[in-house]
Amino acid sequence: MSGNTLGTLFCVTSFGESHGPAIGCVIDGCPPGLSLTAADIQGELDRRKPGTSRHVTQRREPDEVEILSGVFEGVTTGTPIALLIRNQDQRSKDYGNIAETFRPGHADYPYWQKYGIRDYRGGGRSSARETAVRVAAGAVARKWLSERYGIVIRGYMAQLGPLPIPFVSWDAVGDNPFFAPNAEIVPQLESYMDELRKSGDSVGARINVVASGVPVGWGEPVYDRLDADIAYAMMSINAVKGVEIGAGFASVAQLGTEHGDELTPEGFLSNNAGGVLGGISSGQDVLVSMAIKPTSSIRLDRRSIDREGNPVIVNTHGRHDPCVGIRATPVAEAMLALVLMDHALRHRAQCGDVRTATPQIAALAPEGVQAVPSPRAE
Amino acid sequence: MSGNTLGTLFCVTSFGESHGPAIGCVIDGCPPGLSLTAADIQGELDRRKPGTSRHVTQRREPDEVEILSGVFEGVTTGTPIALLIRNQDQRSKDYGNIAETFRPGHADYPYWQKYGIRDYRGGGRSSARETAVRVAAGAVARKWLSERYGIVIRGYMAQLGPLPIPFVSWDAVGDNPFFAPNAEIVPQLESYMDELRKSGDSVGARINVVASGVPVGWGEPVYDRLDADIAYAMMSINAVKGVEIGAGFASVAQLGTEHGDELTPEGFLSNNAGGVLGGISSGQDVLVSMAIKPTSSIRLDRRSIDREGNPVIVNTHGRHDPCVGIRATPVAEAMLALVLMDHALRHRAQCGDVRTATPQIAALAPEGVQAVPSPRAE
Amino acid sequence: MSGNTLGTLFCVTSFGESHGPAIGCVIDGCPPGLSLTAADIQGELDRRKPGTSRHVTQRREPDEVEILSGVFEGVTTGTPIALLIRNQDQRSKDYGNIAETFRPGHADYPYWQKYGIRDYRGGGRSSARETAVRVAAGAVARKWLSERYGIVIRGYMAQLGPLPIPFVSWDAVGDNPFFAPNAEIVPQLESYMDELRKSGDSVGARINVVASGVPVGWGEPVYDRLDADIAYAMMSINAVKGVEIGAGFASVAQLGTEHGDELTPEGFLSNNAGGVLGGISSGQDVLVSMAIKPTSSIRLDRRSIDREGNPVIVNTHGRHDPCVGIRATPVAEAMLALVLMDHALRHRAQCGDVRTATPQIAALAPEGVQAVPSPRAE
Amino acid sequence: MSGNTLGTLFCVTSFGESHGPAIGCVIDGCPPGLSLTAADIQGELDRRKPGTSRHVTQRREPDEVEILSGVFEGVTTGTPIALLIRNQDQRSKDYGNIAETFRPGHADYPYWQKYGIRDYRGGGRSSARETAVRVAAGAVARKWLSERYGIVIRGYMAQLGPLPIPFVSWDAVGDNPFFAPNAEIVPQLESYMDELRKSGDSVGARINVVASGVPVGWGEPVYDRLDADIAYAMMSINAVKGVEIGAGFASVAQLGTEHGDELTPEGFLSNNAGGVLGGISSGQDVLVSMAIKPTSSIRLDRRSIDREGNPVIVNTHGRHDPCVGIRATPVAEAMLALVLMDHALRHRAQCGDVRTATPQIAALAPEGVQAVPSPRAE
Repeated sequence: MSGNTLGTLFCVTSFGESHGPAIGCVIDGCPPGLSLTAADIQGELDRRKPGTSRHVTQRREPDEVEILSGVFEGVTTGTPIALLIRNQDQRSKDYGNIAETFRPGHADYPYWQKYGIRDYRGGGRSSARETAVRVAAGAVARKWLSERYGIVIRGYMAQLGPLPIPFVSWDAVGDNPFFAPNAEIVPQLESYMDELRKSGDSVGARINVVASGVPVGWGEPVYDRLDADIAYAMMSINAVKGVEIGAGFASVAQLGTEHGDELTPEGFLSNNAGGVLGGISSGQDVLVSMAIKPTSSIRLDRRSIDREGNPVIVNTHGRHDPCVGIRATPVAEAMLALVLMDHALRHRAQCGDVRTATPQIAALAPEGVQAVPSPRAE
Repeated sequence: MSGNTLGTLFCVTSFGESHGPAIGCVIDGCPPGLSLTAADIQGELDRRKPGTSRHVTQRREPDEVEILSGVFEGVTTGTPIALLIRNQDQRSKDYGNIAETFRPGHADYPYWQKYGIRDYRGGGRSSARETAVRVAAGAVARKWLSERYGIVIRGYMAQLGPLPIPFVSWDAVGDNPFFAPNAEIVPQLESYMDELRKSGDSVGARINVVASGVPVGWGEPVYDRLDADIAYAMMSINAVKGVEIGAGFASVAQLGTEHGDELTPEGFLSNNAGGVLGGISSGQDVLVSMAIKPTSSIRLDRRSIDREGNPVIVNTHGRHDPCVGIRATPVAEAMLALVLMDHALRHRAQCGDVRTATPQIAALAPEGVQAVPSPRAE
Repeated sequence: MSGNTLGTLFCVTSFGESHGPAIGCVIDGCPPGLSLTAADIQGELDRRKPGTSRHVTQRREPDEVEILSGVFEGVTTGTPIALLIRNQDQRSKDYGNIAETFRPGHADYPYWQKYGIRDYRGGGRSSARETAVRVAAGAVARKWLSERYGIVIRGYMAQLGPLPIPFVSWDAVGDNPFFAPNAEIVPQLESYMDELRKSGDSVGARINVVASGVPVGWGEPVYDRLDADIAYAMMSINAVKGVEIGAGFASVAQLGTEHGDELTPEGFLSNNAGGVLGGISSGQDVLVSMAIKPTSSIRLDRRSIDREGNPVIVNTHGRHDPCVGIRATPVAEAMLALVLMDHALRHRAQCGDVRTATPQIAALAPEGVQAVPSPRAE
Repeated sequence: MSGNTLGTLFCVTSFGESHGPAIGCVIDGCPPGLSLTAADIQGELDRRKPGTSRHVTQRREPDEVEILSGVFEGVTTGTPIALLIRNQDQRSKDYGNIAETFRPGHADYPYWQKYGIRDYRGGGRSSARETAVRVAAGAVARKWLSERYGIVIRGYMAQLGPLPIPFVSWDAVGDNPFFAPNAEIVPQLESYMDELRKSGDSVGARINVVASGVPVGWGEPVYDRLDADIAYAMMSINAVKGVEIGAGFASVAQLGTEHGDELTPEGFLSNNAGGVLGGISSGQDVLVSMAIKPTSSIRLDRRSIDREGNPVIVNTHGRHDPCVGIRATPVAEAMLALVLMDHALRHRAQCGDVRTATPQIAALAPEGVQAVPSPRAE
């Protein structure tokens, strides 16, 4: 157990290096009876895959997934589902110059000190390539959540470097390479990125994810709170440096009268909680926001050291995303799906017999309807 | 496993309700040979305990801890350490009115829907009283981390509601009830709180925690990253709504040239990473910041519903902290200690034989020395 | 995680030393809504407790259990149930002579080498006193299994040293201190034990446990098979050296035509499988048998070494069971209950939606009815 | 987590069905720095693979293993090691007749009732084909155990149906298809098997495994005892119905003076404990014995039911081992290696700093040397 397994009951065990033969995972704990084909997974992988616009890495990976087990005649059997994605476009020579030096902002130095050995090709295990596995596994979870509970999980880019992206509509998200919920702002994002790419620098981003239709009662009260597990899952994504639930850091300056979401028979009046109270889902939309740091690989000179501890100048060529946040939206959605799926199963394990006479409150009362899906101003 | 156990190798299993007979925990996995007495734990509990100033709840709990097992002649034996804290000042009648209604912002409604039964007295299991257990367990972890590795874990309040608290020195932290690293601002904080208390409202806060002396190499690369586990641990604290590592949300607008911490033989030149690269400690200070929402219990009228779904007005009397953030600093320190302890053991399990010839870089090069312990402007 | 937690979803974390202040456990994952009082647990503890006949240790422990959490108004709430049993009759001076020497057959030597420290008083953590905790936790599990599924778990002594105990009836089990299912043989057992006690020696025993009413479908296919988890649970009981499921070691010499249990619409025709096929319950009685070694503490001279490695003669006085198997039946029943409970929850987590049109076969067809509950000849 | 992961720190997650595209596993937690090639694993797989003599199934599977990750330039990196074995010789039509009926002794009926769907081809997930994965993962563990600690793990067949196989020497084991430690008895075993095969029936076997060179101190005291984890691991092997440690069931009739292994400065005088005391290794040989039931697939008529619950006659053709015990020895060795490896890492996680002045006692004093590696008479 070196931290490559996610989940308590819906468990994803991930493997693979950026330039090794393959990446993939084993999903253990999927309920039987779910219709599942490679195409169900492929659709999600295609949303994340590299090389789809000039704003992302030009590595050409079809990310074609093969289901090795756990599915019989198109239906899950309850046994482990192994997913395999062969790497196709490894150009390890591009990265040869990093074998002896530690790239600033990368995991090179701590990996080396931890393990005493390092697959430096393309970042090895620390490459964002691993996030394809998360998306593949997440596709299984979101299919089950959708079919069993009608849950919808959607994300979008809320800020690109210095540019906030006001939320306009979900419809826009799929129509641009940034996952921006706002068609009008796209040209501005494109020119910002073109400029940035020319400069050789990189930039950060903010991604928001929303799960709608989550029933009240999922999560645990103390450590494995639903929001704690979400924070863990999101912070485990490469380059994430911050996670918020609901009002997030805005809560710091809020008064109790502002923050506490009132309940009425018609629904909640606001959603500062972000759909989680005391670690347990409230039935409101689960609102998550995360900060993604600028890509560490840049084409500009940076100071570092080599394996002997001598000073060197590092300048990282090769194929990189100038903003890793651009492809992060499907990854964040997948992680949210995986956490929800796990808690769905955990909940019914312990509380499968519980029935109350209290009605489930609507996510938002009519007066609480929001134009943007999150209480954070973007 | 309903989420009341924290940690993979240094495991804390917590129990207890706010108004039940006792709270406590079992720590499994503590290395043998650590000197440990109740007094070692009591000192930390006393920092968190209620009733120590007019700005916190007036519930009188001595929080006296008894060690039930795992220690023999003042030394840990490697067997489970059970810690017991009897509740003393339960006044359940104060809370009787909440049996039938759901307090806004509290876990009442989702608990009820999840379990179909609810110990409503003082919030039951969802009460912040449970955080005493975290502090007690954390005291064991920080003692071992300190004696074995010289690690120092310190926290402070960085913002109280609308008032940022500029970091001046660690020395100030212990001298005021707010854990403010700034003696001069204390009168301002006190008058703010006095005003707030009179108003019946509550407010949020920001808490920062720093671990110094963490060796390079702790953590895991993919899911159980050191920062992911920290995010989980912090978000699991009652009322936390956001977590940042290093530059946190400031990373969104940073360029790669700003964010990526350069390395030199003399040390790192900055610490935007917050001491974690690719999920693994870099040897720099581990920097964590968190948002704490305003206390949900306020003495002002709020709309809600009762168990039958009828509209009601809730106005929460009883004894409460008007800002739960005030007592959160020792809790946050304890959680960081628990995560680090767990990863210390995990690291040596897998990598106990690793030795490299590469020297460990200093946390910060002389030119990188910072007046404040975090790159976030407060 | 040093192995003091049992179970994946119904988790029991045990603590305590034989001569420390207390023993106890935290049960995490119990479904809410179960009626539970200390008396429910006490009844099971009384079946195991020492000092109830001249054939067992004369240590006087009331084994009085206190419920510290997780129960509200007599009903489980779904939060952790902490159980506390204070030790009363520690006479550590009886054991002072074992501080420096390693008793043969005991854990003294490996404990010392593993931990470098050892609570030698009464065996510390390795004492069979810890089994009281198992019985207490098991009482919760068996109550739920009984109320929710009608499962009955019963055990008996099948052999005492050289004396096989033919199964006559369940009724006899509660009427003698040996848990012998055979009233007639009791005088023989008593005189054997009286003789043995005089000799200062000790002896082994065989215990059988049967769970009736387990639904078809509990367990997992590969590693965490129901029978694998049972084997683990039973072998974890102090002094157990062998575990059998169904026909057990008799299978070695059986032909396939003898061993394979045929199915008919009226029921199975035999139960060599012991109620588990491919790791999953078949709906038949779960049949478990275990070997318990002779007590290691005997009043006869034995060769050993001391902490410096010098040869010594050890002769163990103090209060001991001359046959630890005599009090093992309630412990074995408890362990079976804990494993079944865990798998009940695991099953509904993953397969809660499964319904088949195939009828559940009866445990045994009329022609398969057995006089003894196990296919092993005793 | 549906039970397809073995181990706490050295974790093997297995996947694959008998007639699906592939079987394999992900090993998480392997220490970095171990030399490892596919050939290291292949050697062990070849010992287990089918079709190597007329006494085992004639399915032709090369069982060729591919390492997909976790190894860089022939050395483990500390990241997950994924192993892939493509299935080659699936003849699913051979098994078509079992889609609608439940074979006696097989997992067909409980699988169907548990999951509501079943990959019946060759037994699907419940096929012994999955044991190839265990052998592959075990090869990694035993290599590390051998290189790091000099541990040797060896097994042999101790009984074939009614024929006990007296232990003569380890040398003989590799020279016959039965893993018999006795060259002289091989012709007798062969004629017995030829007879059996003709009859269409099947038979059980007893397998013994021994680990030599295990240091004192591995294991945990209460639930996760070394012997409890071994019992779990062995009972999880297909067809195993009983597990013994050391004297096993012979302990039942032993006196304490017979069973308790005396210690001298020159070594232990006997090994009834089987190398485990109080759940912790004693430094003696770890002795494990297991019962393997007769193969459930036989060519003789058996009564059963179909999916509608109607009575049917089942007669299983296809390719089967008439005694699954014949190929079980490498599997049992692998399982023992996996458990020891896991506890090696667990031990150093918690007790990595422990040093005692007490010398490690020899496994056996000169006077205790045994001709056979186990105290059980075979």
